[in-house]
Amino acid sequence: MQTREKAEVEFSRIVAFSDGVFAIAITLLVLALEVPAGSDLVDALRDRGEEFFAYFLSFAVVGRFWMSHHGLFGSIARFDQPLLAINLAYLAFIALIPFTSEILGEYSDDSAGVALYAANLTLVTACSFAIIRYASRRELMRVEKTDYRVRRATASTVVVTAVFAVSIPIAFVSPLLATISWASLFLVGDRFTERIAGAAD
Amino acid sequence: MQTREKAEVEFSRIVAFSDGVFAIAITLLVLALEVPAGSDLVDALRDRGEEFFAYFLSFAVVGRFWMSHHGLFGSIARFDQPLLAINLAYLAFIALIPFTSEILGEYSDDSAGVALYAANLTLVTACSFAIIRYASRRELMRVEKTDYRVRRATASTVVVTAVFAVSIPIAFVSPLLATISWASLFLVGDRFTERIAGAAD
Amino acid sequence: MQTREKAEVEFSRIVAFSDGVFAIAITLLVLALEVPAGSDLVDALRDRGEEFFAYFLSFAVVGRFWMSHHGLFGSIARFDQPLLAINLAYLAFIALIPFTSEILGEYSDDSAGVALYAANLTLVTACSFAIIRYASRRELMRVEKTDYRVRRATASTVVVTAVFAVSIPIAFVSPLLATISWASLFLVGDRFTERIAGAAD
Amino acid sequence: MQTREKAEVEFSRIVAFSDGVFAIAITLLVLALEVPAGSDLVDALRDRGEEFFAYFLSFAVVGRFWMSHHGLFGSIARFDQPLLAINLAYLAFIALIPFTSEILGEYSDDSAGVALYAANLTLVTACSFAIIRYASRRELMRVEKTDYRVRRATASTVVVTAVFAVSIPIAFVSPLLATISWASLFLVGDRFTERIAGAAD
Repeated sequence: MQTREKAEVEFSRIVAFSDGVFAIAITLLVLALEVPAGSDLVDALRDRGEEFFAYFLSFAVVGRFWMSHHGLFGSIARFDQPLLAINLAYLAFIALIPFTSEILGEYSDDSAGVALYAANLTLVTACSFAIIRYASRRELMRVEKTDYRVRRATASTVVVTAVFAVSIPIAFVSPLLATISWASLFLVGDRFTERIAGAAD
Repeated sequence: MQTREKAEVEFSRIVAFSDGVFAIAITLLVLALEVPAGSDLVDALRDRGEEFFAYFLSFAVVGRFWMSHHGLFGSIARFDQPLLAINLAYLAFIALIPFTSEILGEYSDDSAGVALYAANLTLVTACSFAIIRYASRRELMRVEKTDYRVRRATASTVVVTAVFAVSIPIAFVSPLLATISWASLFLVGDRFTERIAGAAD
Repeated sequence: MQTREKAEVEFSRIVAFSDGVFAIAITLLVLALEVPAGSDLVDALRDRGEEFFAYFLSFAVVGRFWMSHHGLFGSIARFDQPLLAINLAYLAFIALIPFTSEILGEYSDDSAGVALYAANLTLVTACSFAIIRYASRRELMRVEKTDYRVRRATASTVVVTAVFAVSIPIAFVSPLLATISWASLFLVGDRFTERIAGAAD
Repeated sequence: MQTREKAEVEFSRIVAFSDGVFAIAITLLVLALEVPAGSDLVDALRDRGEEFFAYFLSFAVVGRFWMSHHGLFGSIARFDQPLLAINLAYLAFIALIPFTSEILGEYSDDSAGVALYAANLTLVTACSFAIIRYASRRELMRVEKTDYRVRRATASTVVVTAVFAVSIPIAFVSPLLATISWASLFLVGDRFTERIAGAAD
């Protein structure tokens, strides 16, 4: 499964590297908030409500992905080269969030801006799905992770991916509605997606 | 207390992730210092005294919060999902400091700029307070942390939060006075707040 | 080999520091993507295809270098001062990639921009080569790393360096062709370079 | 020496936090290199020779400080609050280097720009000196570190600080000469400063 070369890139380093990218990406979100140049600060800040909304939303989103990434890696026993590549693709979409989040803050009324953000989130969860599928097929998962749990995690990821993906066309009808659909995913949370996932078994 | 899922997001990772956000936020403070474009560097730098003041103040502030965050986490035995969420909110306000600090540097004479900075610090300490309260109610604290110590830490956090909160309206009377009130908190330090906290028991 | 002073700069810290630079550099790549100021977002993004291409290419490149750096350090048993200096030069060229990548995205039709990027990659692999050569001459490699494997790694690094170096003049004939030559290196991958390296033994 | 509260901010965390600041500051240096907006890239880059010089010089400087900071911390057995504060001041001047380095790159012919950079380096080494002095007076050093070695390290730090400090007025006579004086410190290296330090015993 693992080439000898890559056995040296130990598991813990891959996790530490991934964590580093998460911590840096989440802290770079603040760079999207521009200091107003105008003279009246209160007015200038009031106009930037959407930027602040995008900052806190994306902080929650990246934080949430960090937690689920950990859950994911807790199920994996070992790595091979393709799995490393999929994880790198995953991280590339995480590291892209400061950019699409800045666009969301500045173009929050624009369907394209909201759709771009939704597309970014969809691609992150699609990579999660690819990690689970690949790892379970290649038997890289921990033995104690039963088929049942893998099926459940897979179904749950599919549900989340589907919600994000469906919010892309919704954004072209109503940007606000698309935003609400993500927020509801956070509020309703795991329990809901797990139940749907259970029904999908 | 802990869901099995989240037991995998081990304690040490949460601390490492939090430390990463602190280290990145403190180092990003330098980006608020703009290289002057004008030809006379000495004059240009002299006008930026407030920016340098904001840089060093915020470096001390974030450094101080980092130390107190460690003290806080040293008292906690285990995590559940809501505690993770409160910690994430805490980090979101830490990661916001490079932004409010830049505003402080550029609008140091403007009450709104100083008040915004004070509000940011208030929200950080309010999250500290929420962490202590939640962890002690849900019995997530270490057993050796007696009620007495938790009460003391709670009271101390309330005092610091109160000073920051009171400095928000003060900023509208005198921005300088608000700044001095924070600085005094640093100089007078723990001993004073601990004594007041003790009196509040 | 090692001065007593430097024995204290333990191996694990050097690796952690290097990993940190990799994680930060890869996450800073996103700062090259500028949020369009114009009103039509879709049009503005369509014109920036090259910037996105440069982002994903460089993410793959830095990620790939990170993996090979790990392989390299897995072969090294101990450090002396010059090896630390060569590693620092290596990291200086890694940390430069967000800059040359941004130039690649904005000047993708310009031979000079593509050549500059190729030069950056050449310098990274040249440093890899220097690390292998120096470490094997000074007997800083692990004993279990046979001459055969060191020769192979050396030859492999020479091949990759040569491809990047040759792509510099190619960029002045056809920027596209130079870009394809790097991409092919990724797709054809280790197996090809290892085979050539084997032939070079 | 250590308050119980702070014993929880363990040694390893302080080192990891410091290392994080070093890794981030060194990687942020690249942000000083601006992508030219003009159409002729080759001409535009040729005019920026000083920016590239400042980048590589500062990368070497921060890398060098990182190594000496490790040597320093390898001698320290435990921390108290004031030592933490001095270390934070040290890090504040390290994190400032991306700013003064950018000024050096853009104002390399201007005495004030070179003097500012020299002042920054002087303040870093002055903090090193303060760490050694404070730690040895409060008996926070490791027992095996003899008086002789502490005296030597102290003298060595004084020499380096003096060279940087003297280069500040030199910068007003000749910016180039000041730059050469730092570079010579790197090339002549430890051996020279150690010998002078030995003579100073």
